[in-house]
Amino acid sequence: MKILEKPVPPGGTIGIIGGGQLGRMMVLAASRLGLKALIFSDVADVPAFQVTPLQLVAPYDDRATLSALANVCHAVTFEFENIPADTMDFLAALVPVRPGAKALATTQDRLTEKSFVASLGLRTAPFFEVSSLEQAREVFGKLNGEGILKTRRFGYDGKGQMRAISGDDAALAFQALKGAPCILEGFVDFAFEASVVAARGADGSFAAYDPPENVHEHHILRRSTVPGRLTPHQAEEAKAIASKIADALDYVGVLAVELFVGKDGALIVNEIAPRVHNTGHWTIEACACSQFEQHIRAVAGWPLGDPARHADAVMENIIGDEVRAWESLACSGALHLYGKKEAKPGRKMGHVTRLQPRNR
Amino acid sequence: MKILEKPVPPGGTIGIIGGGQLGRMMVLAASRLGLKALIFSDVADVPAFQVTPLQLVAPYDDRATLSALANVCHAVTFEFENIPADTMDFLAALVPVRPGAKALATTQDRLTEKSFVASLGLRTAPFFEVSSLEQAREVFGKLNGEGILKTRRFGYDGKGQMRAISGDDAALAFQALKGAPCILEGFVDFAFEASVVAARGADGSFAAYDPPENVHEHHILRRSTVPGRLTPHQAEEAKAIASKIADALDYVGVLAVELFVGKDGALIVNEIAPRVHNTGHWTIEACACSQFEQHIRAVAGWPLGDPARHADAVMENIIGDEVRAWESLACSGALHLYGKKEAKPGRKMGHVTRLQPRNR
Repeated sequence: MKILEKPVPPGGTIGIIGGGQLGRMMVLAASRLGLKALIFSDVADVPAFQVTPLQLVAPYDDRATLSALANVCHAVTFEFENIPADTMDFLAALVPVRPGAKALATTQDRLTEKSFVASLGLRTAPFFEVSSLEQAREVFGKLNGEGILKTRRFGYDGKGQMRAISGDDAALAFQALKGAPCILEGFVDFAFEASVVAARGADGSFAAYDPPENVHEHHILRRSTVPGRLTPHQAEEAKAIASKIADALDYVGVLAVELFVGKDGALIVNEIAPRVHNTGHWTIEACACSQFEQHIRAVAGWPLGDPARHADAVMENIIGDEVRAWESLACSGALHLYGKKEAKPGRKMGHVTRLQPRNR
Repeated sequence: MKILEKPVPPGGTIGIIGGGQLGRMMVLAASRLGLKALIFSDVADVPAFQVTPLQLVAPYDDRATLSALANVCHAVTFEFENIPADTMDFLAALVPVRPGAKALATTQDRLTEKSFVASLGLRTAPFFEVSSLEQAREVFGKLNGEGILKTRRFGYDGKGQMRAISGDDAALAFQALKGAPCILEGFVDFAFEASVVAARGADGSFAAYDPPENVHEHHILRRSTVPGRLTPHQAEEAKAIASKIADALDYVGVLAVELFVGKDGALIVNEIAPRVHNTGHWTIEACACSQFEQHIRAVAGWPLGDPARHADAVMENIIGDEVRAWESLACSGALHLYGKKEAKPGRKMGHVTRLQPRNR
């Protein structure tokens, strides 16, 4: 197995599993630093294939391809957290994979993740394991009358989750989710949503971006605004939460922690994403070192970059048909389009970041 | 032939002739906008090949390859001005090439270029055609005792030019340059060097960046600083010069005008580069829309972006062996490495841009 005692030198190759917009923007960041980037995707014709000649297409559990990936790359990372555990284990025995198996295992399962967060003394919504109809009804009674049933694994953008306002509701939701192992989370009546995007280097160093306020529509991120309504104290607290989580996971790379900001001002951890994150896209224009460059630096064992923010920023996603307005969007701010062919409803086609001189 | 009545849509392909760092940074800018970029180079293994799967390798006059390029691309541009005229003519009959033949023809020949600039009423160093030993001696007498003999074509980074302090010197220089058609330029005793990078859109719109002050060492750009020592009035004058030149060339794309700033404050046009330019690299971090994005926008027929500068900037080239210090350079500012394998003396390996809050 390759051991990374030294940083990956310029000209070295970083492997990225997954070829969507996150992989694509990682490739662009790696390219700027003089690193090569290889994209491994289980489907052909993905957005990231447009920006690098180094491409592998195969099922994610294809061992020959994984071996080839390990051979070509100095270090490997991923753009999404649902990498099969077997793939991760096989690959991690051959080449440094960052972040590592612990981060993936912890965040792939909502119950494991919530338990982990709670074990660090951080606040979460109340949560209960649900593995049967009876359990769904029973634990609902422990909530204050409203909850969300979520599959423990493989959910994103609101997929695999249903709201419940009664025990019968919760049981029906469990059936609708096909009896998959679930978690019932208490409903949090928050003031607004926020997130903190941060990085931990291979040397244990830590760097956090200013936390944005986020607005979701139909479970999809609409907008991130920095600074949002978080107080300076809350912003520091959010960064401390990210630091605590990153240290406990022995994390290397960029991670995001989604937060609810309670009406009492408390920060409640909603979700950990072990990867670059949509709520960090504004860092491309507003920070000295973007989340994508920061992630590549961490994965390559380079010193972390400066997360300082030189401007206020609003990042707005371009979703589905909204991309038709690309020409006027190109005049309204820094436009990023992801190279996706078809503008399906709910599909993230790009984003625009608008900067203002820094206010605070 | 394809006529570009509408802008190239997202997903469209821009062809770029030349695969060095300028082509590479154009590709990265195109990728951000959701455009595909194809690199056509006459040598394999160039820096820009690392950042796009769309690659053609052939001599620049290979007609089958030029036809393929025209077929695949919605519009074509180039990263260097020494495209053979035949190539340009052949290609321009098949696909929009931006900037066009007039810009290339004018700037490929120093005598044509200087005559063109003078015809616009702009100041240049005194210059004379030299096509024989006798002429070298004779026109030297018209200078104030010092001049530079340059080949009319194919010079860059100080190659193809020699200083002369006597008529005999000038004659010897003409011999050393193998009797190639030359131009003898009077020596300008300037206060400092500057440049203006600007864009003209397909619709005739114009956008100029703030002009940096430049320092060269051994004929290679060392550093660009913005704002430099130019007064606000000189900065406006520099932009007006670029606008005049761009209009006269019916230019589409980014161009750079290198200037001497005389001790009397006069701006003297030294050279026009019909392309993105090393003295504009600082725009990547310091401006809303970089010179590379701006060029791609113009070539694609998109509306020009905002050239506004939100920070003061110093761009420093990383030349030859200096790249060995990449790890400390990565901590000192925004690092760009070009993916070149060998660090030969004088070879531009990358650059670093350092920002400061905007002062004026």
